[in-house]
Amino acid sequence: MPNPPFSAPPLPRRAVIREMGLRDGLQSVATIVPTAAKLEWLRDAYDAGQREIEVGSFVPPKLLPQLADTAEVLAFAQTLPGLRATVLVPNMKGAQRAMDANAASMLLPLSASHAHSLANLRKAPDDVVAEIAQIRAERDARGSRTQIEVGMSTAFGCTIQGRVDADEVVRLVQAVLDAGVDCVGLADTVGYADPAMVSSLFEKVLRVAGDRLNCAHFHDTRGLGLANCYAALQMGITRFDASIGGIGGCPHAPGASGNVATEDIAYMLHSMGVATGQDFDQLLALRGKVGKWLAGEQLHGNVWRAGLPKTMKEQYA
Amino acid sequence: MPNPPFSAPPLPRRAVIREMGLRDGLQSVATIVPTAAKLEWLRDAYDAGQREIEVGSFVPPKLLPQLADTAEVLAFAQTLPGLRATVLVPNMKGAQRAMDANAASMLLPLSASHAHSLANLRKAPDDVVAEIAQIRAERDARGSRTQIEVGMSTAFGCTIQGRVDADEVVRLVQAVLDAGVDCVGLADTVGYADPAMVSSLFEKVLRVAGDRLNCAHFHDTRGLGLANCYAALQMGITRFDASIGGIGGCPHAPGASGNVATEDIAYMLHSMGVATGQDFDQLLALRGKVGKWLAGEQLHGNVWRAGLPKTMKEQYA
Repeated sequence: MPNPPFSAPPLPRRAVIREMGLRDGLQSVATIVPTAAKLEWLRDAYDAGQREIEVGSFVPPKLLPQLADTAEVLAFAQTLPGLRATVLVPNMKGAQRAMDANAASMLLPLSASHAHSLANLRKAPDDVVAEIAQIRAERDARGSRTQIEVGMSTAFGCTIQGRVDADEVVRLVQAVLDAGVDCVGLADTVGYADPAMVSSLFEKVLRVAGDRLNCAHFHDTRGLGLANCYAALQMGITRFDASIGGIGGCPHAPGASGNVATEDIAYMLHSMGVATGQDFDQLLALRGKVGKWLAGEQLHGNVWRAGLPKTMKEQYA
Repeated sequence: MPNPPFSAPPLPRRAVIREMGLRDGLQSVATIVPTAAKLEWLRDAYDAGQREIEVGSFVPPKLLPQLADTAEVLAFAQTLPGLRATVLVPNMKGAQRAMDANAASMLLPLSASHAHSLANLRKAPDDVVAEIAQIRAERDARGSRTQIEVGMSTAFGCTIQGRVDADEVVRLVQAVLDAGVDCVGLADTVGYADPAMVSSLFEKVLRVAGDRLNCAHFHDTRGLGLANCYAALQMGITRFDASIGGIGGCPHAPGASGNVATEDIAYMLHSMGVATGQDFDQLLALRGKVGKWLAGEQLHGNVWRAGLPKTMKEQYA
C-alpha cells in the first residue's frame, strides 16, 4: 500500500471519440447498409455531436461491397460543417482516391505483426512503410492537404503470430514518422491488450512520437476495452476510436469482435468530467437505428441496458 | 501530453479475488440452488484456486430462501484447508450466528446512502455503526476470532438517493474503524463508479484507513467494472470481490446488475502479471455448471466468449 496513497494523474478536460462504425463496423458484418441509410446515420451522428467519423474505405468494391459507396458517403460528409471525415486506404491506389476526393484525413493501416500484415495487406510491414513514403511523396507532388495517419494494428498481439514485440512497434512508428506521416495511433485489433500493456506501450511510443501519437483504438473482445481507454487517457491520449453499438472487427483477424462501443466510452468520459461534445440520448437513438439497419447482427456495449446513473441525469437536468 | 510521458505506478505482484457468487450472486436470482449443488460449486471453486469465498448470509430464511442453508454451506467450506469463508451478516443476530459457527470472517454491510440504508437494513447509517460497535463488544466478550469486515455499500452513489458525498463515506469509515472493525471495503453497489471516482475516493479513504481499507467491490452495470478494478489496483488495493459469470446484484437497488465477473478479472489480472492463484480453464468449467444450476438466469462477463489470447495460452503451455 503506498503511503501516502498514489494520486492518479489529472485527466484531460476534453477528448475526441472518432466514430468507426461506418467502416471498421460495417466491414465486418455481412449486411450491406444502403447508401441512404448511411447518410441518415451520418446526419444523426453529426447531430449527436460527432465531429470525427471514419466514413468508409477506398478498397476494391469486390473485396468489401459493404463499403463500395465510400465516395458518395464521403461527399455527403463533406457537406456537414466542421465534420472531419477519415477514409481508410490500404495502398497508393486508395490514397490517390482519397486525395482526389479531397478527404480531410486518410488512415493507413500498418500491421506490427508480420503474419497479420501478410494476411491483411499481402505485404510485409517494411514494404508497407515504403508505400507510405511513396504516398507522402505523391501528396507533396500534388500539394494535397489530406492528412496521413497511420493506424498501427496488432500493436498488442496477433491471433496469427501471437506475441508482437514492443520494440518492433516502436521501430515501425519511427519508420513511418521518418516517412513523413502526420500522426499515428496504436490499435489493439484483436483484443489482446490489458491496461498495463497500454501504459507501457504508449509510454514507449510517446518517447519517439510525442504528440504525433494521438489515437488509441481498442477492441472489446475480452471486456478490457474501457479499462484500456482509461489507461491510455492517463497517458495523455485524447483521441479514441469507437463504434456505435460496439460493431466492428477485422475479417483477417479470427476471433476479433467489436470496437469499444461509442456510447460506453462517451458515458465513461462524461462521468469522469472529460468533455466529448457527444449527446448520450442521441447516441442511444442512433444505436437503435443501427440495430435496425443491421437486423440479425449482434450489437454490443453495456450502458444502453442500464441507462445513465441518476446522478448523471441530475447533472444533465 | 506529459513530457516525459506519465509512468503508470508499478502494480502489485499478487491479488485476491474473493468469490461472491454464492451470496451476492444467488441472493438476486429467483432460482434456489440445492445445497448439494452449492457444495459441488464450493469444491470446484476451491479446486480452481479460490481461497476466499463468501458462502452465504445469516439472514432470516423467509427473507432470502436462496441462502437458508448458509450454516451447512459454511460448515462444508470449513473442511477445505486454507479456504477463508466469509458470511454476510446484517445485524447482531446474524453476527452471533457467524460467531457461533466460528466463521473466519463476517461481512457487515453499511450503506453510505441514508436512503439505501433505510431500504436495505431499515436503519440509518449511524444506527448501523452503533450496532457494529455492539457486535465488536460481543466478539470481545466471547473471545471469538471471527474477523469483522465492513462493506461500505453505495459508496459511489445510490439509485434511490442519487449522489453520495465522499465526505460522508470517509466519516462512516472512520466511525466503523473507531468502533473496532478489522477492515473495510468500498462497494459500488449500483454501478455508478468510474475510474476517476475510484482513484479519488480510495485515495481519500486510504488516508484515514491505511491498509485496513483492503477491498474493492464493483458491479459491472454499465461496463466500467474492470476499469474500476484497474483504478483501485493502481491505488494498491489487492482484494477484489467478483462473482463467477457476473451474477449478482442487490434486491433493494433497482437497476443493479451483476458483480464483476470472476473469470474476467482473473484474466485481466493474470494478463498484467498479477498472480491470483486461480485457474482460468477451471473457472470457465465452473461457469458452465453455474449456468446449468441457474438455467433461465442471465450470466454476464466477456472473456468466456473469446477465450484467452493465443499469447497467454503460449505462456501457460
